[in-house]
Amino acid sequence: MKIIHYHDAPARELTSAAMRGVTGRVVIGAADGADNFCMRIIEVAPGGVIPPHRHPWEHEQFVHAGQGRVRQGDRWIHIGPGNCLFVPADTEHHVENSGSEPLIIVCLVPNSAPEL
Amino acid sequence: MKIIHYHDAPARELTSAAMRGVTGRVVIGAADGADNFCMRIIEVAPGGVIPPHRHPWEHEQFVHAGQGRVRQGDRWIHIGPGNCLFVPADTEHHVENSGSEPLIIVCLVPNSAPEL
Repeated sequence: MKIIHYHDAPARELTSAAMRGVTGRVVIGAADGADNFCMRIIEVAPGGVIPPHRHPWEHEQFVHAGQGRVRQGDRWIHIGPGNCLFVPADTEHHVENSGSEPLIIVCLVPNSAPEL
Repeated sequence: MKIIHYHDAPARELTSAAMRGVTGRVVIGAADGADNFCMRIIEVAPGGVIPPHRHPWEHEQFVHAGQGRVRQGDRWIHIGPGNCLFVPADTEHHVENSGSEPLIIVCLVPNSAPEL
């Protein structure tokens, strides 16, 4: 069994697709023997943005801390601690930190996706 | 895209394997089109116990809130918010709430496992 705090996993700034203020950590992945899906912790700084993008794999997400908003069509949906999000494959998603603290999202992807 | 708060998913008391004070919620599962893995929220009440058990599928877990402990062999490891746990398939695991607030664990299983 592996037990870590996410702070103790290496953080990498994500710079693809015009991300701003976004870091990612792989906390459970193939290197741990997790062959089916991978857990990452995504941290969006205040003012940070994950711009609109899509990919051929799904996300299962849980908001641990912070405040943000997610765009659905022309509406913005507020998200905060305890929210759960399912982003199906090939679905556009777009997230902003709308608060003053880091937005911490537990984000899981299947093993067909890159880990970060 | 599905966005819910876990409080809004139906909670079911888990009574198998001598569980005590444990409820589970499926927040993202096959009914949502999540074909690869399933997100559940497991809540262990103060004094509650998930007794030693094992099964042929893995867990990927994230501690959202509360304080607990996990047994590894003859040692107990403290867990709290931000801890990530990987329990490989066929590995015994045993969890207790050691605090005074609910222990809230985001727990994911592959689609080969029962959702709850």
